[in-house]
Formats: sequence, structure tokens, C-alpha cells
Amino acid sequence: MTRIVQKYGGSSVATAAHILRVAGLIAERRRLGEEVVASVSAMGDTTDDLTSLAHEVAPHPHPREMDVLLSTGEIVSSALLSMALHDLGVDAVSLSGAQAGIRTDAVHRRARIAEIDAERVERELAAGRVVIVAGFQGVSEASDVTTLGRGASDTTAVALAAALQADACEIYTDVAGIYTADPRICPDARPLLDIGYEEMLEMATTGARVMHARAVELGAVYDVPVRVKSSFDPTLPGTLIHRETSMEQGNKVRGIAHQSHIAKVTVRGVPDRPGIAAYLFEPLADANVSVDTIVQNASVENLTDMTFTVAPEDLEGALRVVQNVLPHIGGSEVVFAPDLGTVSIVGTGMASAPGYAAKMFRTLFDHEININMISTSDIRITCVVESDRVADAVRALHSAFELEREPAIGATQVE
Amino acid sequence: MTRIVQKYGGSSVATAAHILRVAGLIAERRRLGEEVVASVSAMGDTTDDLTSLAHEVAPHPHPREMDVLLSTGEIVSSALLSMALHDLGVDAVSLSGAQAGIRTDAVHRRARIAEIDAERVERELAAGRVVIVAGFQGVSEASDVTTLGRGASDTTAVALAAALQADACEIYTDVAGIYTADPRICPDARPLLDIGYEEMLEMATTGARVMHARAVELGAVYDVPVRVKSSFDPTLPGTLIHRETSMEQGNKVRGIAHQSHIAKVTVRGVPDRPGIAAYLFEPLADANVSVDTIVQNASVENLTDMTFTVAPEDLEGALRVVQNVLPHIGGSEVVFAPDLGTVSIVGTGMASAPGYAAKMFRTLFDHEININMISTSDIRITCVVESDRVADAVRALHSAFELEREPAIGATQVE
Repeated sequence: MTRIVQKYGGSSVATAAHILRVAGLIAERRRLGEEVVASVSAMGDTTDDLTSLAHEVAPHPHPREMDVLLSTGEIVSSALLSMALHDLGVDAVSLSGAQAGIRTDAVHRRARIAEIDAERVERELAAGRVVIVAGFQGVSEASDVTTLGRGASDTTAVALAAALQADACEIYTDVAGIYTADPRICPDARPLLDIGYEEMLEMATTGARVMHARAVELGAVYDVPVRVKSSFDPTLPGTLIHRETSMEQGNKVRGIAHQSHIAKVTVRGVPDRPGIAAYLFEPLADANVSVDTIVQNASVENLTDMTFTVAPEDLEGALRVVQNVLPHIGGSEVVFAPDLGTVSIVGTGMASAPGYAAKMFRTLFDHEININMISTSDIRITCVVESDRVADAVRALHSAFELEREPAIGATQVE
Repeated sequence: MTRIVQKYGGSSVATAAHILRVAGLIAERRRLGEEVVASVSAMGDTTDDLTSLAHEVAPHPHPREMDVLLSTGEIVSSALLSMALHDLGVDAVSLSGAQAGIRTDAVHRRARIAEIDAERVERELAAGRVVIVAGFQGVSEASDVTTLGRGASDTTAVALAAALQADACEIYTDVAGIYTADPRICPDARPLLDIGYEEMLEMATTGARVMHARAVELGAVYDVPVRVKSSFDPTLPGTLIHRETSMEQGNKVRGIAHQSHIAKVTVRGVPDRPGIAAYLFEPLADANVSVDTIVQNASVENLTDMTFTVAPEDLEGALRVVQNVLPHIGGSEVVFAPDLGTVSIVGTGMASAPGYAAKMFRTLFDHEININMISTSDIRITCVVESDRVADAVRALHSAFELEREPAIGATQVE
């Protein structure tokens, strides 16, 4: 029997009408004889609403209690979807993360899955039921509710697919798949038929929010092929994220990712001696500040500058930490820039072929977009630019690398 | 160390501002050195809102899933209250019914507490924390969420007070205590200083909605004195529900209870033979129709009439069941009256003193209120009257039994 794990995002279950449509999609799969497990997000803006409510009672809500609070959003949608299935004559059962055996560490707000005890899910499937799992949540060893971080219903689905040895994992969202760039700012963007795990990871971590980065990592580790599809038009093929990427090597840039808003912090005049980086970044990690790019310039007269980027909402916390450690590391001053963004070109082909970086920098220069900072990986080149030039940069690069062109028929390997 | 269990109802935690006030009340008790466990209801209209949402996806929501859905309301308020306490510098922890060890049977929507495993709650108290328990819910042996029925956060509190051997149980609500009658329809009504368990039970089951009937039963069984207080003015004494009722025997009617809307079903011409009642009422119970009063008239020519009352929302279901069994029990016809109500006088003194029933019937007659049906217990006399005369009946009886008069000083035994 074919076993599939699905995930329906917040926009796919935003209202009762949306939930009824999702129930219809699942009922159809049951009629085809498939075993279905679905992970669901909270309805529409529920998570934001609950967060606002929390801030009304406490400026800095306690993380454990925040997890208890936020976890209810996914429980509500899981129960409603299960009810809707029953009403269609499909036997179903909703399970919380704890009931579904999703065991995590005890890091509230950003817990990581330690293991999945799939016994209950297997038992429900064996009884012929559709299993609806509240996404985004798990349970710690102390039996406390944990959440896996924003967008982590994807992670729930991929982890379940791995644990249940599912035949397929389908992520339903409100777009037609993974695009070559964000179609809201780049009208020529088109959905990719497939993309490799590493490419997707670079796309996700540098701004393509369709898929949660940790879900992609998990997919890669457990080799779970993940199909990203539109719940509004499930007849579209969507994008397959899998190990083998396209055989088509003509265009080695797969997509343009971007982040509209990041902030940059620079610590000037730091003595260039071992251990300085640890002194700086350990307390940032302790303060739960997630650091993106880190750049350390070559030292001049044994002094160096240390620059890193953070999300705008983490800037205040980052500056507080840096000011505290400044006397210990001996830096001369801290400067920051709050209104920056990033644009990245991503593709596995780039590492083995020269000229991509040069073409990127030339394109930005031709459009008079100033490059503030550069960082690279094997399959990605990222430029930090002014926030208000991000959209221009995405469009210029999309066009320069001819991403609007469909790959030749047959050149794309499909599952 | 004094240990108290409190319950805060939906109106006491209706908004963030309400929750902050409740947190202040609890923080004050902590400053006095007391151990505090609080059971909370869902905020304001949350339960109604969730119920409406359920009916948008399914006309007859699956009971198990309805429990999953509704249980989130209390979890939200418990997490918010715990956050608010942390913000006041009070260590606190929110627990779901399952986490608090509230084990129930598996009858969804109307589960009953089987036992309380207080290990986790005791551990949190020993660590110096205030424990906030999501009311109204528990967990079945199969690890499924159950709910205890509308208003059952009271039951959660009393059961916890019994299991934790608390020194006091306080039910906070939006009124000043248990009134001699509903003050909304009887302006002369006044709060009682104390009332016996049995009296309270009769008041609760015949319409005084301040306290959940099962909570009163539990209090009686485990001898937990329960104080009903206003969360809006906690300086008021409220009403103590306890074993010993007032020594003041001058007025044996403690209060007037009423139900504004009930429906009556009569099965006519039933052969008067053994087992008929079981034939009729077993299928009603199976259909989850809760029957209030049952009256069987003396038989004439071996035929009798069987009359019972139900909540208006159960009338349709009751009629369906009765029509189905009519051929088997041989009744001639089924008639019903949808627009009735009840008025009751309640008091332990009545059983041992004659004349209360006569005075009640005379008072109603004097006010031209027709009595449709009568039922009595040791400490209660109930008359079924037209729905639109219920308020008049309450006022007339309150006045006739002089309930507006305060008991003499010293005549009321206080804890």
C-alpha cells in the first residue's frame, strides 16, 4: 500500500472552507487506497494572534509557556481537519506532537527532534485511519510541550515521512512550487520542476520561505524526496526536492534568493588573536541571537574587523551582547547598519565553472547597486546590498542568468 | 504551609487585563507564603467560538475531535496566566489536564474523573512554583484528550483540592457568591454566607449555574469545603459550601432555583407493566439525552401516562427516540410542550417541617401561575410552569419565604 505524508500550511487551512477543501483532497487519496498522514499548521494568522495575546500579558513571555500557548494553534486545525474527514465518511484521528511520538530536546521555541516513536501513528494507520498530526510541536523528556520554530510543520512532515518510511512526502502551500526567484518581485520567475537538497537549503536559508530549512536538511539526511505543491491547484506538478538534481547543465544558476531586511553589526579594531571569535559568538548563541553571515577582514597592524548579519528583530539583542563583551575582546567600537538586504545566486553547477561571481558583481555594478559585503559557499554567492535595492538586484540577476527560460524538454530528470 | 486550590472562570480571565488581575491575586497569595494551584477556564466566549468553528466544518463534529478542539481554550488561558505570573516575578508552570494527571474514562464530551495522579503537581509545588492547570479536561487510558462537560473547571478544582489535600478550595466567578435566587430576575436576592453540599447540589441542578453540580458532589464525597467568591471584588466573603449548614433554623428555605427553558414529553396510554420505564429511558440514555424530572401518573384501566422533561436542545432527539420505541412499549401517542420552565424551593430544613409545599403552591396560585407538573426530593420542591411565568414565580416565592431578610447575627456558622 502506498503511504504518503503530507503537510498543509497555514494558508491552506486558513478558514473552515479551506479545511473542507483539504479534507476533500485527503479523502480522494484514501479512495485511491493510499495511507495518509498529514501534518498541519495553525489556521492563517493564528500564531501571530496568539503571539500578540502573549505580549499583552507579558513583555517577554516565558519560553516554556509560549510553547504551550502556540502549540494550541496546530491542535485546533488538526482537530477541525479530522472532524471534516469524519463528515466525509473517512475515519481519521488527530494527534498532538506528543501523541504522535515526536520527541524533542528541551530548547523551548527552537526545539529539535530527537526521535520519533511512531507506534501510535502506525497503530492508527493499521486501523485504517487517516492520521492528522499537529505540526510544529513535540514533547520533551520532561513531558513538556515544545515547538520547533516558525514554519516547522514542514519539519514535522519530513521527519514523519522518514520515520514511517513513507513512499512520498508532499508539502502543500499557497504557491505552485519553488520558483527561480520570488514571483512577487520578479514577474519572470517560474516554478522549478526539481531542485537538489543542497540548492534548496541555500535557497531556504537565504530567503525562499516556501520551505523550512531544517525540513530540507532532514530530507537530505534521510533521503526523503519532497514534493512542494499548491493546495489551491493540486493538478500542477510542483517542485520535487531530491538527491539528484537536473541533468541539464546549460544553466548552472538554479535560482535567485533574497532577504529584504537584515542588519549588519561590525566590531572594529579587534586584536587578531585566537579565541576572539568564540568570545564574541558564544554569548550571542546563549542569547538566542541567530547569526547569519560572518566575515572577518584581513588584519592590519594586528587589528581586525569582525562583521556579522542578524535578523532586524535580533539587532537590539545582538548589540546588547556585543557591548557587554567588548571590554573582554578589546575591540575599539561597534557600528551597525539596520537597513540592508541580501541577494544570492544558487546552483550546484557553479563550483565547477568559473565566471559566475564575476557575472553577478558586473550585473549589480551595471545597475548601480552597491555591494556592501560578500559571502560564498560551494553552491551560493551572496551579496549584501541596501534594503531598497534588493528587488532591483533580484530582477537584474534573474534576467542576467536567463532564468526565465524553461529548461529544454527531457533535460530535467523527473521522479 | 497553607495549600489552596483556586478556580477562575471564563469571565475572570476574559481578556489580557483580566488575566493580569488574576495574576495579581495569585501573586498576593504567594507573598503570604501559600502554595497555590489554580484551575482556569477558557477566556470569555472561546468555547462558543470553537464550537461554532467545529460546526462550520462538520454538522455533527466527532466527539473525540471536539474534545481535542475544545481543550485548547483552557490551555491558552493557563499558558497566558503562567506568563503573567512570571512577569510579576512569580515562578509558575501551566499544565494540561493530562500533564496534571487528571485521568478520566473515555466518554468524550462528558468524561468523568477516574483518579488524579498528583505526582507532577506535587513536584512543581515542591519546587516553589504556582501550578496553573487547564480546567475542564483530562486524559483517557488511551492517552486521548477528554473533556468533563460544560462548566467542569469547577470539578477540576475540587478534584485537585481533594487529591492534594488542600486546606481550601476557592471558586472565583463574576458574582459575589451563591444567591438566594438569581439576582438578574430577583432584585431582592442576597448572597448566602454558607450553604450545605446537598442544598447547593439541588440549587445547581435546578438552575443556579454559579457552580457545576459534579463539583459539588465531589466536594461532598471528599469533604472539601468550597468557597465561591467574586474575582472582581475578592474582599467580599462569598459563600462557603460545606458539610455543616447554617444552625439558623428559622427559615428552612435557603434559596429559589429556576430553569427558564425546559421541554416536556408525555407518552400517553402506556400499558402499566414492569420494565416499561427501562424500555423508554435506556434508549434515551444511549442517545445521550439527559432526562431531568420523570413523573408517572397512577394508572387508569391499566394504562398510564409517562412524562419527563429535557433541555430544549435535546427535545428533537428525545422525540425521535420515543417515536422509535413507541411500538415496542405500546403507548397510544406522544405529546410535548416546548416552552416550559421550572421553579424550585431548596432547603434541608424542609423535610422535617410540614407546610412548605402547601405554601409554595398557594403562592403560585395567588399569582395565577399554573403548575404543570410537580416533583420533590427531601430538600427540594420543584414546579414546572409556563416559561414566561418563571421570573414572576421566582420573585413571588423569594418574597413569600422572606429570603430577602439577612439571617440573625451569630446564627450562621462560619468556617
